[in-house]
Amino acid sequence: MKTLGIIGGMGPSATYDLAQKIVDRTEAAKDQDHIRVFIDCNTNIPDRTAAILYGGADPLPAMTDSARKLVSIGAEVLMMPCNTAHFFYDGVCAAAGVPVLHMPRLTAERAKQMGYSRAGILATKGTIASGIYRKALEELGIEAIDPGEAGQDTLMKLIYEKVKAGNMDFSDVAIPELLAEMKEKGAEVLLLACTELPIAFELIDAGMPTLDPTLILAESAVLAAGGKLKNA
Amino acid sequence: MKTLGIIGGMGPSATYDLAQKIVDRTEAAKDQDHIRVFIDCNTNIPDRTAAILYGGADPLPAMTDSARKLVSIGAEVLMMPCNTAHFFYDGVCAAAGVPVLHMPRLTAERAKQMGYSRAGILATKGTIASGIYRKALEELGIEAIDPGEAGQDTLMKLIYEKVKAGNMDFSDVAIPELLAEMKEKGAEVLLLACTELPIAFELIDAGMPTLDPTLILAESAVLAAGGKLKNA
Repeated sequence: MKTLGIIGGMGPSATYDLAQKIVDRTEAAKDQDHIRVFIDCNTNIPDRTAAILYGGADPLPAMTDSARKLVSIGAEVLMMPCNTAHFFYDGVCAAAGVPVLHMPRLTAERAKQMGYSRAGILATKGTIASGIYRKALEELGIEAIDPGEAGQDTLMKLIYEKVKAGNMDFSDVAIPELLAEMKEKGAEVLLLACTELPIAFELIDAGMPTLDPTLILAESAVLAAGGKLKNA
Repeated sequence: MKTLGIIGGMGPSATYDLAQKIVDRTEAAKDQDHIRVFIDCNTNIPDRTAAILYGGADPLPAMTDSARKLVSIGAEVLMMPCNTAHFFYDGVCAAAGVPVLHMPRLTAERAKQMGYSRAGILATKGTIASGIYRKALEELGIEAIDPGEAGQDTLMKLIYEKVKAGNMDFSDVAIPELLAEMKEKGAEVLLLACTELPIAFELIDAGMPTLDPTLILAESAVLAAGGKLKNA
């Protein structure tokens, strides 16, 4: 089996959420049946949304540093458990010299396979502004539905002030209003397109189907390594 | 802050359990406040108990391979989220050339600080036979209480047939009998001295205090990196 590499730290919990999902989705009866995974939980990577929207520090040098380190010790397929980071995907690929899985495209492909034609995108402002998911969806003929400004503020609060800060009390976050908006705009499915959101949505009833890009990335990683998916 | 390195894969879930506990125990408000951690989830490491008890393949070469890889990309303090692996601690230290945290000794120190004088050891047969925990406890004047043969069989079943195989239905494992035995032998506290056991004991009521060596290792790692413990 091929060895996987995770350019992590964006954020740390999302990194280990992906890693554990790779374990959970691998058909294995003992330690030695699992896939070898190298991880750089690189907390030196500057905030991606700040870089895209507000002229913050460029995260690409730290991301390529991780990519090179992982490849230097033997990683053969890389991935990034941060959707916003895919704004910098081409730069990471150029530095890595090995295949890099593309989480938004894999998620759009899954939505297509499942027959959805209108997908709501729940993400950071950086991911929404970058158009990463919109582009991936529209290339497959799926209508992309963004939250409005208030909904995007709600998501930033949920992601930064709650999950990334380790605070799982969401009672002061306007989640019902956000969900109502997405339903009204015609979303058939919600893409939890920030790696902190599947963690949050374990505690939230979305009232419609959701897709977890982290889980889709984990499944793609198992297959890319040559492993066998559990119950598949 | 110093960069940490985890010699992992023994098993994979225990590896990410430790990594997530390092995140949980670090005082941090954003991604960039967390500690950088390199992980080799090295599932090529042969089973430690099989090597100690039954002449199985020597796991040390794969463990030192991981240690050298992690140090080569910048890890400054290493750790192993596998208690049985500490049988090979001196060999790993010799190869690493950087400090390696010693989970059993750190756990014995914590038990001493908390004032316990008789500690029950729940672990693999390899860990029990190696005497790793017994030695660490007795050096600090704490009486070490091992499970009898039936109790050790129970633990091996719980660790290998359940947690490592991803099966969390413990109804056919003789856990109540094991707990009664440890209580009868005078244990005041149970050391969950296999990294799969804290995962299992999230679902088990031990009926007496337990210490989680993975959590103790995580806290020691935060401090060794120069980080700040949350709520400390």
